[in-house]
Amino acid sequence: MTAPFTIDAFHRGNFWLVQPDGKGHRAGMDAMMLAAAVPSGFSGRLADFGAGAGAAGLAVASRCPKSRVVLVELSREMSSFAERTLAYSGNSHLAGRVSILVADVGLAGKERVAAGLADSSFDYAIMNPPFNARHDRATPDLLKQQAHIMEDGLFELWIRSAAAVVRPRGGLALIARPQSLQPLLAALGGRFGNAEIVPVHARADAPAIRIIVRAVRASRAGLTLRPPLILHDASSDLFSVRADAINNGRASLFGD
Amino acid sequence: MTAPFTIDAFHRGNFWLVQPDGKGHRAGMDAMMLAAAVPSGFSGRLADFGAGAGAAGLAVASRCPKSRVVLVELSREMSSFAERTLAYSGNSHLAGRVSILVADVGLAGKERVAAGLADSSFDYAIMNPPFNARHDRATPDLLKQQAHIMEDGLFELWIRSAAAVVRPRGGLALIARPQSLQPLLAALGGRFGNAEIVPVHARADAPAIRIIVRAVRASRAGLTLRPPLILHDASSDLFSVRADAINNGRASLFGD
Repeated sequence: MTAPFTIDAFHRGNFWLVQPDGKGHRAGMDAMMLAAAVPSGFSGRLADFGAGAGAAGLAVASRCPKSRVVLVELSREMSSFAERTLAYSGNSHLAGRVSILVADVGLAGKERVAAGLADSSFDYAIMNPPFNARHDRATPDLLKQQAHIMEDGLFELWIRSAAAVVRPRGGLALIARPQSLQPLLAALGGRFGNAEIVPVHARADAPAIRIIVRAVRASRAGLTLRPPLILHDASSDLFSVRADAINNGRASLFGD
Repeated sequence: MTAPFTIDAFHRGNFWLVQPDGKGHRAGMDAMMLAAAVPSGFSGRLADFGAGAGAAGLAVASRCPKSRVVLVELSREMSSFAERTLAYSGNSHLAGRVSILVADVGLAGKERVAAGLADSSFDYAIMNPPFNARHDRATPDLLKQQAHIMEDGLFELWIRSAAAVVRPRGGLALIARPQSLQPLLAALGGRFGNAEIVPVHARADAPAIRIIVRAVRASRAGLTLRPPLILHDASSDLFSVRADAINNGRASLFGD
């Protein structure tokens, strides 16, 4: 591979990510917040849908020492970065619990099973679905565009697949934009219950920039709207104490 | 009327409510928060769907001196309390801008028009739809039960009616439980856009107990999740400064 890349530390150096340099969707706070939705004591098999170079999945493997993680990624280019991430020496303590599956999360039925995503074969799924940035002029290049173009219908496809591969009482966590709340909740309906939403605000007085949603397969319990996560204290560009702990794998988002 | 009643001050005595004593749904903070979603400068015609004794509608009339308010209530018993509320001497400065319509908000088409709810005849609608408390053993009596039984389908009926009676670019505000987020957003879809949600938390570290939602008829703008309203500061049973201002008609919820 000749594409330029970077090797970036996460969780204060507990794992590293090999990812495209300035191209594609570069992993950051979104992936760390998503991973933080998984309980610290989680010890099962987890699928990271649309894993990219592996940031969220590795963050789960890093914080949950008994977890096993499958990085599911369609793009050959991004999955090749995931391979290099797992081969990197700084990740050798995690690599034994992490594998890569090149597959389209949007498949259904026998095609999905044939692609390696068997029914009820996971205890948890996490996803950071690509979101629609077609009008976002700040993201011009093609790889980034592929990662960010998200029709509302993709929630339906991805959550349908999550409902198939996650066992009853297993979990789902996802991160999305607040604008996607309606299609997202519609896609959860009848599949996942006991939904818990954490709004994420850059600052306490500004609208939410993300929502993190957790839910339980085949639960019929109602929705809970939890207190928000505030990334920055007033008049500071530094992360708040809580956001820093979440970003660095020192705390889970839901306190469990 | 021989039923026991109370006469309660709202907005620090700027208006009063004649309502059943210990029976039915007694108005309080929910109605004040709902009314606070209407911009202070609102000067049009507003429908209060399911108005009860008139708390939310009168709170709008109290804070918005150029508004005209129609209290829409199906229950003859509750609308009789609304009549006594308007006849009460302490409300004489508002009564000229407030009227009562005994009608079923859930009607559609010609029946709705015949009931007095003409198409595009309002600039704003507000609603505090009765919510499902069938399993809530703390609300045993019949009037309260009627006010609180809310199937998800009622959001569809009430919001459908709001979409009919509110003119294009007019507004809708409602208060609901977080559990109702999905049916509520589904009912808004294609009818109201530019939805803004304010979660209401009793305390900063506890899940939301209510959501207040505002939206614009025929807008296609996306959803915004605003910072929460916290009712009580830590270790205090008193209202927070902001909650007290909203409860007493001194501030709007969205700052407009």
